[in-house]
Amino acid sequence: MQDLRTIGQKAKAAARQMRLADAQAKNEALEEMAQAIEAKAAQIIEANQEDLAKGQEAGLTEALLERLTLTPDRIQGMANGLRQMASLPDPLLVTDKEWINRDGLRISRRRVPLGVIGIIYESRPNVTVDAAGLTLKAGNSTILRGGKEALTSNQTIVAILQDALAETQLPREAVQLITNPSRKLASQFMQMNDYVDCLIPRGSAGLIQAVLKQATVPVIETGEGNCHLYIHEAADFDKALKILINGKTQRPSVCNALENLIIDEQVASDYLPKFVDALAAHNVEVVGDHKACSIDRRIALAQEEDFAQEFLDLKLAVKITSSYAEAVEHIEAYSTGHSDAIITENYQVAQDFMNDIDSAAVYVNASTRFTDGEVFGFGGEIGISTQKLHARGPMGLEALTSYKYTIQGDGQIRS
Amino acid sequence: MQDLRTIGQKAKAAARQMRLADAQAKNEALEEMAQAIEAKAAQIIEANQEDLAKGQEAGLTEALLERLTLTPDRIQGMANGLRQMASLPDPLLVTDKEWINRDGLRISRRRVPLGVIGIIYESRPNVTVDAAGLTLKAGNSTILRGGKEALTSNQTIVAILQDALAETQLPREAVQLITNPSRKLASQFMQMNDYVDCLIPRGSAGLIQAVLKQATVPVIETGEGNCHLYIHEAADFDKALKILINGKTQRPSVCNALENLIIDEQVASDYLPKFVDALAAHNVEVVGDHKACSIDRRIALAQEEDFAQEFLDLKLAVKITSSYAEAVEHIEAYSTGHSDAIITENYQVAQDFMNDIDSAAVYVNASTRFTDGEVFGFGGEIGISTQKLHARGPMGLEALTSYKYTIQGDGQIRS
Repeated sequence: MQDLRTIGQKAKAAARQMRLADAQAKNEALEEMAQAIEAKAAQIIEANQEDLAKGQEAGLTEALLERLTLTPDRIQGMANGLRQMASLPDPLLVTDKEWINRDGLRISRRRVPLGVIGIIYESRPNVTVDAAGLTLKAGNSTILRGGKEALTSNQTIVAILQDALAETQLPREAVQLITNPSRKLASQFMQMNDYVDCLIPRGSAGLIQAVLKQATVPVIETGEGNCHLYIHEAADFDKALKILINGKTQRPSVCNALENLIIDEQVASDYLPKFVDALAAHNVEVVGDHKACSIDRRIALAQEEDFAQEFLDLKLAVKITSSYAEAVEHIEAYSTGHSDAIITENYQVAQDFMNDIDSAAVYVNASTRFTDGEVFGFGGEIGISTQKLHARGPMGLEALTSYKYTIQGDGQIRS
Repeated sequence: MQDLRTIGQKAKAAARQMRLADAQAKNEALEEMAQAIEAKAAQIIEANQEDLAKGQEAGLTEALLERLTLTPDRIQGMANGLRQMASLPDPLLVTDKEWINRDGLRISRRRVPLGVIGIIYESRPNVTVDAAGLTLKAGNSTILRGGKEALTSNQTIVAILQDALAETQLPREAVQLITNPSRKLASQFMQMNDYVDCLIPRGSAGLIQAVLKQATVPVIETGEGNCHLYIHEAADFDKALKILINGKTQRPSVCNALENLIIDEQVASDYLPKFVDALAAHNVEVVGDHKACSIDRRIALAQEEDFAQEFLDLKLAVKITSSYAEAVEHIEAYSTGHSDAIITENYQVAQDFMNDIDSAAVYVNASTRFTDGEVFGFGGEIGISTQKLHARGPMGLEALTSYKYTIQGDGQIRS
């Protein structure tokens, strides 16, 4: 039986070593980890088969089993991901700013790691490698707490990563896994303020809410995306159609997929039927307000909650608006602050939209599907934050760091 | 009886207006608030007398009554503080960075307000004005929850601020006060995730722990300072003495005051007695480890907990170390990560110390008393963060902001 306190102490000791590790040592460790994953792919597949067999017995849904499954391709993807991280600039080689204050003190704000990061996640075992790699690259140690469905896969992967780390200058305990699936233990983990600097839950809304409720350790909330596409009266039809179909159908199950369509009534009777044609060709179910239904009979009347909900499926809610102000108000009322877009050729309206909408990512004439750390150019992401504290939107390596001030004087005292 | 939900809704509506307020409108409002405070100083004094009378009846300590007291000078200080905030650069007129990604999207990271900030504090009524002014300058709305001892003072001050705001373009509800002293209500306030973006507790360790325990809203922890001064063997004696006395005696009750002195044994028998002389002249009680006691008989033997404790008083714990590594280890074991300093003339040791010590502020040859937003040049501070998430060390206006991404395209979709 694992002792959480021991895990915490080891993580803290490892964090101390990690904090002082140089960029090269970390990159070599990532390469070592990548090679180990490749060399032991068969062992990972075997462990994964065990989890899959148990999952089938336990009656997991097809979708869950799919997420749980590791194939040789997916394992290669994990190794490639680690090498990609090694190639990224080190986020700690940065001084944000430096100045001299009125007392003649030289004050520098330097990037430092967060310390010990706890990651709480669900069934995807690739998160294990991804999270371990990113947190390590940013100079942290990690305590992972995965879902019990993936326990054997995760144990195998973490053992491989730890053995690889043992071959490097970095501490083996830079990556640890909580193997006891007890919820009580998980809850204790979320309150280990003496050992854990930050918790990042990755998974369903239920998981995230549970962590927020129980944690006393600071949490970075990665949340739901009830994303809107607003077709302004000055929209270009071709861009609108293309971006609508991309946002709704390219990968409907993810948080940056579109859930809501807003159309200015000036263009609605012209555009909406063509949109519904295209959506129907992609098997998207469309619901809408009274005005939308009256424009196109194929649209079913939406319930109030349809506008507030993340369908994560081939379903879309349509609202017809009579002004820009009404559209902004609707987005403010229903958006979860993840990603919202406008299609317009009007310069001033585009500027206003970027100011008015208070979401992590605000788009003009582009698909909300771009909200992603890799696409943004961060080289990867640990999640997409929907809170405003610390980090917002796609979180790359910088979100896994903090800063400290160094103050250099020559004998100054405060008067 | 106040309804928390109503307060939350009003704060959120006000935050929406505040978000779009321009720099000039905010600065004019701060000036309006300053004038109102000046004009109604007598009314504030009267309300404060009421609180003081109740406090005396209730048997508050002299120290608490002192903190609660508002004098004409202190009230003028509050007004001056607001004018000082008006003169600061607006933290929202900033784009942190902008780049074009591989898809040709122009991605900007722009500063935006946090939204609704909750401030939970204890008996100092000047915090009311200070917190309201800083959060407003950063484009937020605020819900204040002060201590019940200062309730009449706080109510009077907030009413004056709201009346002043009513004369401006900004919403009256940009500043609100929870007047019901119920703890249950305070606890509900800490869980209003739908309305509050961030909580900042200001006050005793007990208050902060209570907020961390109960809150589901993200908290910025402002914490204890168990600050160390390490006299390295290559220290300049004069600098060491001056900085020691400043750190320990200039204002012993604050979080950046010194609590611990570490001396390398190579210089301890020479320096320590002279330090104790000077400390004695300032009525500082000195406790220390066995080595310290054997060097100077005036030093009483320290208990283990003396090294871990924030005395916040004229008391100091001394530890004698036989190496740099031992000193760093001691600091790592006992520091609360607030402010720690080294005195040395050795270049390499100074560099190492700044790397090795994981505290918010790490000093070389300067007093820890400088850890302060005003002194750092931020124009003011909302507190000193001892957590690593979001903001660390003295928090100025930037700590009261978040960011959002705007993404400008010309029809891009994700493939």
